[in-house]
Amino acid sequence: MNIAYVCVSHKPISIETTGGIETFTIYLLNALINLGHNVTLFAAKETDLTAFSPKLKFVPIFSLADLGKKESENLESKEFTLNYAFFQYAGVAKVLIEKETFDIIHYSCAQWYAPFLLSDGKTKTLTTIHVNNLRPSAISYLFNNFPNNYIANISDSSSMSFQSYPKRKTVYNGIDLEYFPYHNSPDDYYAWLGRIAPVKGLKEALQAAKIADVSLQASGPLDFMEYYNKDVKPLLDAKRKLIRPLNFREKGMFLGKAKAVLMPVNWEEPFGLVAIEAMACGTPVIAFARGGLKETVVDGKTGYLVNSVEEMAEKIKQIDKIDRKKCREHVEKNFSSQVMAEKYAEYYQEIQKIS
Amino acid sequence: MNIAYVCVSHKPISIETTGGIETFTIYLLNALINLGHNVTLFAAKETDLTAFSPKLKFVPIFSLADLGKKESENLESKEFTLNYAFFQYAGVAKVLIEKETFDIIHYSCAQWYAPFLLSDGKTKTLTTIHVNNLRPSAISYLFNNFPNNYIANISDSSSMSFQSYPKRKTVYNGIDLEYFPYHNSPDDYYAWLGRIAPVKGLKEALQAAKIADVSLQASGPLDFMEYYNKDVKPLLDAKRKLIRPLNFREKGMFLGKAKAVLMPVNWEEPFGLVAIEAMACGTPVIAFARGGLKETVVDGKTGYLVNSVEEMAEKIKQIDKIDRKKCREHVEKNFSSQVMAEKYAEYYQEIQKIS
Repeated sequence: MNIAYVCVSHKPISIETTGGIETFTIYLLNALINLGHNVTLFAAKETDLTAFSPKLKFVPIFSLADLGKKESENLESKEFTLNYAFFQYAGVAKVLIEKETFDIIHYSCAQWYAPFLLSDGKTKTLTTIHVNNLRPSAISYLFNNFPNNYIANISDSSSMSFQSYPKRKTVYNGIDLEYFPYHNSPDDYYAWLGRIAPVKGLKEALQAAKIADVSLQASGPLDFMEYYNKDVKPLLDAKRKLIRPLNFREKGMFLGKAKAVLMPVNWEEPFGLVAIEAMACGTPVIAFARGGLKETVVDGKTGYLVNSVEEMAEKIKQIDKIDRKKCREHVEKNFSSQVMAEKYAEYYQEIQKIS
Repeated sequence: MNIAYVCVSHKPISIETTGGIETFTIYLLNALINLGHNVTLFAAKETDLTAFSPKLKFVPIFSLADLGKKESENLESKEFTLNYAFFQYAGVAKVLIEKETFDIIHYSCAQWYAPFLLSDGKTKTLTTIHVNNLRPSAISYLFNNFPNNYIANISDSSSMSFQSYPKRKTVYNGIDLEYFPYHNSPDDYYAWLGRIAPVKGLKEALQAAKIADVSLQASGPLDFMEYYNKDVKPLLDAKRKLIRPLNFREKGMFLGKAKAVLMPVNWEEPFGLVAIEAMACGTPVIAFARGGLKETVVDGKTGYLVNSVEEMAEKIKQIDKIDRKKCREHVEKNFSSQVMAEKYAEYYQEIQKIS
């Protein structure tokens, strides 16, 4: 199939990225090309093409310079929000100009609803919802007034507000297993990986590690300085340390060598990529039973689903009951980028057949 | 002509409104209907139709309830900004579905660029730019990639970033003179009217009134509490008072009975509706020489353009040199809603003729 794929981000798409939308793009497109599809990526001209198969066609649709993002700009500000949103709408608008060339247009940006407003109802478009920033009443309005677009949710949990919409499917995220090699015998530490933000639960991970009296290594970018100073820093000690943010290849090693990865998230995590990255390396995951984690972590088999810091501490002590090989197999079977690409390719074909 | 007019606001369009985009809509549409045009307004279902000529056709395209605005919500927040922006794009998208019915689609919302992305290049659309929240690089990107829409700026001053775009015109705002009757003999006070926000210069108005030793009455909604407490409140006294915000009819009386209206604005005011409202009542305007005010106030004839608080205080003493009749005539000739509607009707016709 001829697939147009649109990804507008305020960061370059590159192997160094930590962003979910960018890594999703790299994994999916390479796997689709491996399956024999013709893929054209529409993205910022600063895209690092070495992250992709040489067979990828690339059309720069804007430059990060156009976005005019200022150094250390507040990404929550009204000015940045509106300018960034504009480029998301403009991205799909630009691709639609040459829509005849493609069997399907797959859109994957924060403004997931842009194709609903922009497409003519005849063009086949699919949008993956990674994050949702529309309110329930606005979603109803969208689906009632512009019912001409297909959607994919990245977990059943994150699809709750979208269940009534008929052109919907859950397609789980998948990862490129090459980047996450299997480790049979871990070192003596537990790992935490993520943005240092309240929802990601570093505080709770540290508390659980302390109660269980195990060593913890945490890594991630500092998103909320105030949270870090108030809630995280006081819990750090000789046995529980914060290390620097890791790049793509270091991440696989860091996760793979851990006894388990702790994910005591404080929100309905839409998917939780770290869980499948860890399990791919053979590392079990002990997670709060919230959001997509309930769908990726098999309780008692590839880790544990728990509901409190105390329960997490208990399960830390029982980690040797988990067979690391089973963790790897679980991801190979369900969450590889190949599996994800196959599901998307099926979905594309289904959409294309509907007249 | 058959005119579709789109106005998406988070407030109802009604005679009680203080918002620029809403009053513009009321003035323009009534005047277009008076000129004999068929006008269909696409707006929130909460629109107060008594503000309009009974000949207006009205199509509700959404409900303010859909917007899900919470009581006293922070309008600068990312969540509100994105949901509100969505409805602006959706508004024009919905009208474009029935585009064949109309000779022109006139769009007038904060997201002025939405029609550029949404129209097919054949549909004739015009957008009035009341406020601009796109950065210069994003504007260039828009004009280079989607050059199929016409724009109107509300003053030459506010058109600076748009000068290079060929499908452009300045069309001044106009007001319905019925609401602003002429007053020949003023009472003994100077007036200030506007949002109590730093850019609107209430502090400077109070300072000028104090230096000139004249009485000042100020009216407007409290937009920035901190600014009010710190910069405004200490300058209030027996002679210089803040009165409550005024409705539509009270406004004409308040402005008309003033000796002059002070507008020491601290930004490039895009137009400055209060200036023409005041002059329509016969009241001269003493304004800082910034933005659209340089185009509406004729220095020495309908008021004074000044550059400092001190200069403003001096001109306050010379206010009797201004002929109030000349102020009224100036607005009648250049800034009535009829004049504005004639200019827009001409522009519509011009656009329609271009194939």
